[in-house]
Amino acid sequence: MSYTAPVKDMLFAIEHLANLAEVAALPGFEDAGLDTAQAVLEECARFNEGVVAPLNVAGDRDPSAWKDGRVTTTPGFKDAFRQFAEGGWQGLQHPVDFGGQGLPKTIGAACAEMLNSANLSFALCPLLTDGAIEALLTAGSDQLRATYLEKLVSGQWTGTMNLTEPQAGSDLALVRTRAEPQGDGSYKVFGTKIFITYGEHDMAENIVHLVLARVAGAPEGVKGISLFVVPKFLVNGDGSLGARNDVQCVSIEHKLGIKASPTAVLQFGDAGGAVGYLVGEENRGLEYMFIMMNAARYAVGLQGIGVAERAYQQAVRYARDRVQSRPVDGSLPGSAPIIHHPDVRRMLMTMRALTEGCRAMASVAAAAYDAAHHHPDAAVRKDNQAFYEFMVPLVKGYSTEMSLEVTSLGVQVHGGMGFIEETGAAQHYRDARILPIYEGTTAIQANDLVGRKTARDGAALALGVAARVKQTEAELRASGTPAAQSVARRLGEAREAFADAARFIAGSAKADPNAAFAGSVPYLMLAGNLAAGWQMGRALLAAQALQARGQGDAAFLEAKVATARFYAEHILVRARAQRDAIVEGAASVTALAPEAF
Amino acid sequence: MSYTAPVKDMLFAIEHLANLAEVAALPGFEDAGLDTAQAVLEECARFNEGVVAPLNVAGDRDPSAWKDGRVTTTPGFKDAFRQFAEGGWQGLQHPVDFGGQGLPKTIGAACAEMLNSANLSFALCPLLTDGAIEALLTAGSDQLRATYLEKLVSGQWTGTMNLTEPQAGSDLALVRTRAEPQGDGSYKVFGTKIFITYGEHDMAENIVHLVLARVAGAPEGVKGISLFVVPKFLVNGDGSLGARNDVQCVSIEHKLGIKASPTAVLQFGDAGGAVGYLVGEENRGLEYMFIMMNAARYAVGLQGIGVAERAYQQAVRYARDRVQSRPVDGSLPGSAPIIHHPDVRRMLMTMRALTEGCRAMASVAAAAYDAAHHHPDAAVRKDNQAFYEFMVPLVKGYSTEMSLEVTSLGVQVHGGMGFIEETGAAQHYRDARILPIYEGTTAIQANDLVGRKTARDGAALALGVAARVKQTEAELRASGTPAAQSVARRLGEAREAFADAARFIAGSAKADPNAAFAGSVPYLMLAGNLAAGWQMGRALLAAQALQARGQGDAAFLEAKVATARFYAEHILVRARAQRDAIVEGAASVTALAPEAF
Repeated sequence: MSYTAPVKDMLFAIEHLANLAEVAALPGFEDAGLDTAQAVLEECARFNEGVVAPLNVAGDRDPSAWKDGRVTTTPGFKDAFRQFAEGGWQGLQHPVDFGGQGLPKTIGAACAEMLNSANLSFALCPLLTDGAIEALLTAGSDQLRATYLEKLVSGQWTGTMNLTEPQAGSDLALVRTRAEPQGDGSYKVFGTKIFITYGEHDMAENIVHLVLARVAGAPEGVKGISLFVVPKFLVNGDGSLGARNDVQCVSIEHKLGIKASPTAVLQFGDAGGAVGYLVGEENRGLEYMFIMMNAARYAVGLQGIGVAERAYQQAVRYARDRVQSRPVDGSLPGSAPIIHHPDVRRMLMTMRALTEGCRAMASVAAAAYDAAHHHPDAAVRKDNQAFYEFMVPLVKGYSTEMSLEVTSLGVQVHGGMGFIEETGAAQHYRDARILPIYEGTTAIQANDLVGRKTARDGAALALGVAARVKQTEAELRASGTPAAQSVARRLGEAREAFADAARFIAGSAKADPNAAFAGSVPYLMLAGNLAAGWQMGRALLAAQALQARGQGDAAFLEAKVATARFYAEHILVRARAQRDAIVEGAASVTALAPEAF
Repeated sequence: MSYTAPVKDMLFAIEHLANLAEVAALPGFEDAGLDTAQAVLEECARFNEGVVAPLNVAGDRDPSAWKDGRVTTTPGFKDAFRQFAEGGWQGLQHPVDFGGQGLPKTIGAACAEMLNSANLSFALCPLLTDGAIEALLTAGSDQLRATYLEKLVSGQWTGTMNLTEPQAGSDLALVRTRAEPQGDGSYKVFGTKIFITYGEHDMAENIVHLVLARVAGAPEGVKGISLFVVPKFLVNGDGSLGARNDVQCVSIEHKLGIKASPTAVLQFGDAGGAVGYLVGEENRGLEYMFIMMNAARYAVGLQGIGVAERAYQQAVRYARDRVQSRPVDGSLPGSAPIIHHPDVRRMLMTMRALTEGCRAMASVAAAAYDAAHHHPDAAVRKDNQAFYEFMVPLVKGYSTEMSLEVTSLGVQVHGGMGFIEETGAAQHYRDARILPIYEGTTAIQANDLVGRKTARDGAALALGVAARVKQTEAELRASGTPAAQSVARRLGEAREAFADAARFIAGSAKADPNAAFAGSVPYLMLAGNLAAGWQMGRALLAAQALQARGQGDAAFLEAKVATARFYAEHILVRARAQRDAIVEGAASVTALAPEAF
């Protein structure tokens, strides 16, 4: 059940795909070169392998428990979170001004993946805290920032996102929680929020809830939503904790997976009103919430990659140990470890290729984020921001859907033992199932990709990405090796399929929205497949270049070339079916009327 | 959480695809016409909807429990099983000579699907009993048949299959359980068997274990395995129960799903030896076990269809009830039931098309089984037997892998509620995960398809199936409707992809077995996809013919045409990617050496 962080692969992606040297040339990241990245990743690996990963099974068997409004986390979690905070891991990417380490996302993303591999449930608490920090950094008043940020960045307090209500899931226009101004600048908040991750727990002194609510008289729909800070304990002028606020955890959910992570129902204002403080301006809550959401969506994509990596490692170990049947090629005289059977290898290669492809895609997206926020040239910032925003639904949607395939294969590799809970493979299968749902379902990501990121500019950005892919194809063809030729061919087919789909989506979004949105999720899956396959193509080129110079770890580079080729020949080939379903199959999606089901 | 048996769709498949009229023309099935089928299915629907389906959630929450060697099933199971037995459901397809009803598999398969939709865990007990009955019918001595068959067919006793041991899962050559001849014709059996479904329970008076074991001095490997009957209670000469036999249930497993079904570890012979009786001849155990296995494999395919149907129904209900967001086409003024959103429809259509496609495929396979066993002409029997045997790995492998996709979509349609166990969608996702594993993993099915059923005859049978598909394409093209044209086109692409793959597999199985078996599971998935899509094409033709004659249920027929078209445009299109992975991607599956993972 152990976990070994794939530091080598992460550093390869950071150095050769995300081009850390360029990131380290940005103002403010001067110290974030490869040596720093390596030191941070190795320290992060030690912490997660040694402290967090061993708690993963315990969290599943002895999950968070609710009693009388209090939630007790799995034994060991509180101490591990203390070590997490003391190690400075919560502040890794946050500003030095508030006690953070100010490292680029390019490095931080790898650390977050490790934490998620180690323990998906544990990792959710820092993930939500990051979102609260982002929102306060962007829109919080000086006073809110002074009161809350340092404590959140240090891990002394944690944060939550309170969006969902029983009648308002994906549709935030239906939010009913209300906030009444008190005349002193504060508000009183009343309402019920559900699905609040770490909405109550015992790992930190205070919990800073960020809550969507309506002020009386606000416009209908999403334009009338405001964002409030509602702390579990009020904070005195000197920063010490004051009275308990009027927010109560009335229950936690009984879930399929990530059981150690408490999913709270929070009741605000049953005893007179929960004290809340407006973030930014009234009625701009959705805008601020999207800042948190976008950070969280990218982070949930990393959760997909993290759980996939863990499932992969466990499957490899089992496949090496479990002895059954003689290899079909007669290469061994008797029963052999099942890793010698071609179909087991196919499953392991699929798991490996998908995980490495998504990791590479996420790493490149992180570098774009860093450039978008730190590059001195506004035009470069804008281009990178546009590329990053295009990548967020892919990182979130594709990596999490990918994690369902990988964790399912992880069970399958184990055969009958995979179905027995003690084996541990089933936990990953259960845990991963939430990832394509929370922080916006895959369909919500796909709507974003179709609406804001493809149709709005007539697919200009999408086709721009396709043009960059085509450039990589040319480099692959120029390299001349059989592996590069094969990847170039499959990449070209997938890129053409994607471009077709993007043009179809852009062309039909207004004229025939049902047709455009009928293919939204296949389009996201096609785009994600292409983006990950593209990065695997670039990885192959980088590996071959190192091989040609006699540099690097020979076995690692050989494996990278083999994995990139596998990705192209087994996963990129799915692209045409997705294109056909989108471009030629739209009408059949909605042909059957709702009442005919 | 309720279930409504899809009697109309089942009867459509039985009448128009499986051609029940031809089955009813076979000797012995004279009374098994459409009226009988309808009466049996309607009675079966009443029983499963009313008695078995309501126990499904209870079985998950309050599973079978072990204490001191005894297993207590979920409250209600024992009584439901008594009703199942009294209704004659266990004997539906078994010979009248032993108290059965002697109905064709074409009808029995639909009934089995209903039982599985109602309750996968409950359905396993009859499923295993069917296997034991098959083995005794085929190879049991007159005395064994006289002693056991009537009680098994009536449901008074139940049966099990004891194959797996800790070191022997897919690889039965490693079986170590031993049997010592006692001189009186009986044997004493010693050993440990694991993963024994309903290996111990409280629903029947006696349990008839069919056990693989080695007689001292038997050849190594699978050629030295014999099959024994080892009853839980010995049976006296008058048929009454005698002494408790020396077989003990030492524990049951803690599983991901199908929790109500006890999965036993059985210990044989700890108190001097379990009394066993040889079935057939020594060292022919594997051959007899395959009789049970083949019946069970087809039946597990029906489990996949059953759980998919149940997940589909639950998702449709939720999608009709849950109100979120305005439709993208503006067809409704405000927030609408989510079934109005194109991506929800895409998910529901995918679930529906896969389920109906696999049901149609299984129904046609059942008719071939009936003809193979009852047709007066030996040549027709032989052809049908070959076709049925080709279909078994598809029904088992494709339908169960399909059920993972469908139950996962079922969770997704529910959004965040899908992850909450109380909703019930997650149970299907957990329950289904065993189906591609037990009774031979998908890889084992694929090995069978590649080795015995494709390579052995140089793909003659496979290409013969392709030729039959081509005939359906011609009929579709001749019909001229846009839906038929579209299905013909996608069917043609998929059929060509399949034929390419079959030729590649047949051509490389001996020369380069790693290459052939690297694509074994994709080949199975491609074949299953084609077989199900083919039947959906035939269903479209049958529906159009009825429409042209003004017969049948207009809404049902319209939905059938729409679903067939969706299958072609969204699922058959996957075929080319599978073909490319098999034919052009074999080398990359095994390029990375086992030690390089």
